[in-house]
Amino acid sequence: LVDVAILLFDGLTALDAVGPYEVFRCVPGARISFVAAEPGPKLANGGLELMASHRLDEVANPDVLLVPGGGGVAAVSKDEAILDWIRRVHGQTRWTTSACTGALVLAAAGLLKGVPATTHWRSLEALAALGAQVVNERVVRAGKIITSAGVSAGIDMALTLVGLELGQEMAQTVQLAIEYDPQPPYAAGSPAKAPPAIVERLRRV
Amino acid sequence: LVDVAILLFDGLTALDAVGPYEVFRCVPGARISFVAAEPGPKLANGGLELMASHRLDEVANPDVLLVPGGGGVAAVSKDEAILDWIRRVHGQTRWTTSACTGALVLAAAGLLKGVPATTHWRSLEALAALGAQVVNERVVRAGKIITSAGVSAGIDMALTLVGLELGQEMAQTVQLAIEYDPQPPYAAGSPAKAPPAIVERLRRV
Repeated sequence: LVDVAILLFDGLTALDAVGPYEVFRCVPGARISFVAAEPGPKLANGGLELMASHRLDEVANPDVLLVPGGGGVAAVSKDEAILDWIRRVHGQTRWTTSACTGALVLAAAGLLKGVPATTHWRSLEALAALGAQVVNERVVRAGKIITSAGVSAGIDMALTLVGLELGQEMAQTVQLAIEYDPQPPYAAGSPAKAPPAIVERLRRV
Repeated sequence: LVDVAILLFDGLTALDAVGPYEVFRCVPGARISFVAAEPGPKLANGGLELMASHRLDEVANPDVLLVPGGGGVAAVSKDEAILDWIRRVHGQTRWTTSACTGALVLAAAGLLKGVPATTHWRSLEALAALGAQVVNERVVRAGKIITSAGVSAGIDMALTLVGLELGQEMAQTVQLAIEYDPQPPYAAGSPAKAPPAIVERLRRV
């Protein structure tokens, strides 16, 4: 876990990228590149711009690839330059990962055929339609591919990866550094736990 | 909760800003401004650049002010232009908030004298030295000021604020939208829970 590449694109969900980023950057020696078809500011859902520092062809063999999700996934899933890069890079990674609907991009690149995987709860059917073997868990590991559920699940995914790669003590150190002792004021974070009316309303949006 | 202003500066911790951002931007109608002494890219700890969209004098009366933390807090705490802006804006806000060591900036601005507040566990003593009444909880509300513990605690803070301002149903809707059903693979997210040797090592860093 030295070189981490995080794909950026217009319409990403900022927390999908920044949650795992904050975990990885706490690992001593980690170098994180933000990669895009065109470097420069990428517009996240909601208006924040995150800066992409590297072109695709400048990042060939990261140890970890992270693909975030967001509304921009539909366009990225048809962008052959990005999909080719993902396939090439995946051949070299130690870990290929996604947060939220980033899994749909990995699937579009052909990486998830028959592979156990997950995504945001509203996109589980779309992921299945792309050939993945959908698993309704927060973090799903299949060999070197680790996918995670919606948005905030990327933090759990990244801590899991640090534990697998560098051991429990490093993962616990990072967890304490970012004081990740979650205490949500409500218990509505999954469709199984939220009030059914809220689930239905969000499903229709 | 219509206009949210998030202060950016070089040396911020990205997740301190982006965790609450992701919560606030899921509220229908919310407008979020990223404010800095100089607009443009701000370098977060670890290398990511976040774009500041507004100058201080362009944002005078947000409903919510969020001050993130990070290594850059030392410099920001001596920047009279920023501290003046915080004091002025605080006079108009419905809620004035911080994540992580952003509380030290609120304290430097004179907002926390005798006020119950919290920050990253490693900075609790520094916060007390600035006159705050330190409370060792993850989210601390004192009137319209809400401070939160280290880094990831900003997510819990923002959900708490949405619940207070807009009600439980909206907060639960946002929580489900970002699938915030945390399942950290370890239980090491606070100094009370982490192995003592890890706590001691991080304390010395």
